[in-house]
Amino acid sequence: MSLRRLGEFGLIARLQSRLKFRSPRTLAGIGDDCAVYRDDGRRGKVQIVTCDTLVEKVHFDLSTSAARQLGRKALAVNISDIAAMGGTPLLALVSIGVPRKTPVRFLDRFYDGLNEISEEYQIELAGGDTVASPSHFYISVTLLGEAAQRRWFCRSGARPGDKILVTGTLGDSALGLHILKSGRKSIAGPQAVKNRLIQKHLDPTPRMAESGMLAKSRARITSMIDISDGLAQDLAHICKASGVGAVLWEESLPTSQAFDKVTVLNDIPARNLVLAGGEDYELLFTLSPENVRNLICRFDKVGRLLACIGEITNDPETVFLMGKGGQRKVLSKVPGFDHFTP
Amino acid sequence: MSLRRLGEFGLIARLQSRLKFRSPRTLAGIGDDCAVYRDDGRRGKVQIVTCDTLVEKVHFDLSTSAARQLGRKALAVNISDIAAMGGTPLLALVSIGVPRKTPVRFLDRFYDGLNEISEEYQIELAGGDTVASPSHFYISVTLLGEAAQRRWFCRSGARPGDKILVTGTLGDSALGLHILKSGRKSIAGPQAVKNRLIQKHLDPTPRMAESGMLAKSRARITSMIDISDGLAQDLAHICKASGVGAVLWEESLPTSQAFDKVTVLNDIPARNLVLAGGEDYELLFTLSPENVRNLICRFDKVGRLLACIGEITNDPETVFLMGKGGQRKVLSKVPGFDHFTP
Repeated sequence: MSLRRLGEFGLIARLQSRLKFRSPRTLAGIGDDCAVYRDDGRRGKVQIVTCDTLVEKVHFDLSTSAARQLGRKALAVNISDIAAMGGTPLLALVSIGVPRKTPVRFLDRFYDGLNEISEEYQIELAGGDTVASPSHFYISVTLLGEAAQRRWFCRSGARPGDKILVTGTLGDSALGLHILKSGRKSIAGPQAVKNRLIQKHLDPTPRMAESGMLAKSRARITSMIDISDGLAQDLAHICKASGVGAVLWEESLPTSQAFDKVTVLNDIPARNLVLAGGEDYELLFTLSPENVRNLICRFDKVGRLLACIGEITNDPETVFLMGKGGQRKVLSKVPGFDHFTP
Repeated sequence: MSLRRLGEFGLIARLQSRLKFRSPRTLAGIGDDCAVYRDDGRRGKVQIVTCDTLVEKVHFDLSTSAARQLGRKALAVNISDIAAMGGTPLLALVSIGVPRKTPVRFLDRFYDGLNEISEEYQIELAGGDTVASPSHFYISVTLLGEAAQRRWFCRSGARPGDKILVTGTLGDSALGLHILKSGRKSIAGPQAVKNRLIQKHLDPTPRMAESGMLAKSRARITSMIDISDGLAQDLAHICKASGVGAVLWEESLPTSQAFDKVTVLNDIPARNLVLAGGEDYELLFTLSPENVRNLICRFDKVGRLLACIGEITNDPETVFLMGKGGQRKVLSKVPGFDHFTP
């Protein structure tokens, strides 16, 4: 089946038919000028909305990304943004720019991936736009959600003395991408271990469960962000928005066994991957020091990782890395991902 | 100033500084993982959201579109979708895919256009995404708004016997595009007249004022859509969603003096432009017959165009055009714009 034969509206009907999850709060979904939805009738909510775009050859390569995984990731990275605010996702709009030569089969698989993750997180795909693209495939997802009026997190509240915490482990996604780019065979290590790292890159898990725990806790969380550009750069975003600085403790930065094994076996410098790798989609947040021990305990009880990795300082916009011996290295200039610089 | 020198975050800060309108309802705007906004505290509202994408070489050509106009149009086409639901726009997310060679000056002008129209319609630009694009410039705008719970319009309520009405005039935008493509000099007619038609294509006015009048009226509006794909195709969308057919009265289709002058002078077949031209961004809606006269009067009093152009039938999904002599022509197969068929 070719796109040309199916046509725009045939394609929309076909893709729509693959989507299973319907929300009782959506009053009008795909097939109208707008999507319409209602609030849940309870007061004290705020609306939250985010938009992330993935572009072929910039964010993904069709030679290494399977269509189904790409569908999952396109929604997952937006769910991660909602998680970073302490919110709950509700409905999504998916816009795709499709080169005319794209096989319909590819789009079917892409929507299978979208459908899977929308069911997992109970998000209705309620609209979007389907347009031709002259050369590259791209995906722009808008995700809408809500949060408690008195309990949502932004980047700008970090205070000197707050501790810096992170969920999960760092650098896996960047190492997975490195393995994909180098070719699996050229990197030493057990296949299953390498696959786990690749999986973390291609099919990241947004930290909704962790975000829910944080939002429900009474811990004084003063700022939060998800790590998409890399630990150093995303921490710098918090510091800039909050007018503070930070020191990271190198020894405390959490890495996975898979990461340690592959970096050691292949003599890959680990530090840069951990600090600047990007796409970890872990939650990075700042917390009043008196809440740290309790919160880590609570995460530990349910088998979720949470690590205290540093401290906020009153040295505006300066991020240091402190090594084992106490020596400090300025990290503020460590580049993360930037779309327009080489 | 080059993009490479400015970098992603420099660019975002620069573009953000051009945006002036701030809404008191936006709690977090550009510069966080999500935008956060609150409802107006009144009950009985529904949330509405739409997303439209414009792609270089598909929707616009940088040789004929000025950057400022493109910024205006990118938001205007989304405002038109909100108007078609009877809603009010509140805040927008703007995602752009930018080829690295794009002059920063072009983006400045583009944001000037966005800023102008966001002030005109009191819409805060509260976020988005700025990414590199390998070859073509593209823009994806998500627009959020709200409507009264008991007074919003979709495509699916048209009933046999309802009249079909349209705001403004038809075909101007398609004729304007034709003039642009042919070159102004090769089309006969006064420059000011040709410019008016080109303007309608490059800088369309979303029918918010008309939509507000319709939403506030007690008229029994049974369905509504904005004309983006062309009258015949957008009417077919209403018919399909409502399970009805329609007949259009050829004599009643409203055209502008500028349109009539240029089509006659240049012997351009007018009918196809009126029926299938697209991008008119007029409101097309169906109405109980008893409300037609009164509504047209009310529009007339405030100097706004509204025409009754046909009737809904119970012949599912069949759209006829009825000529002066009463002869009928099946229009259901009149193609409007389709992204994937030649």
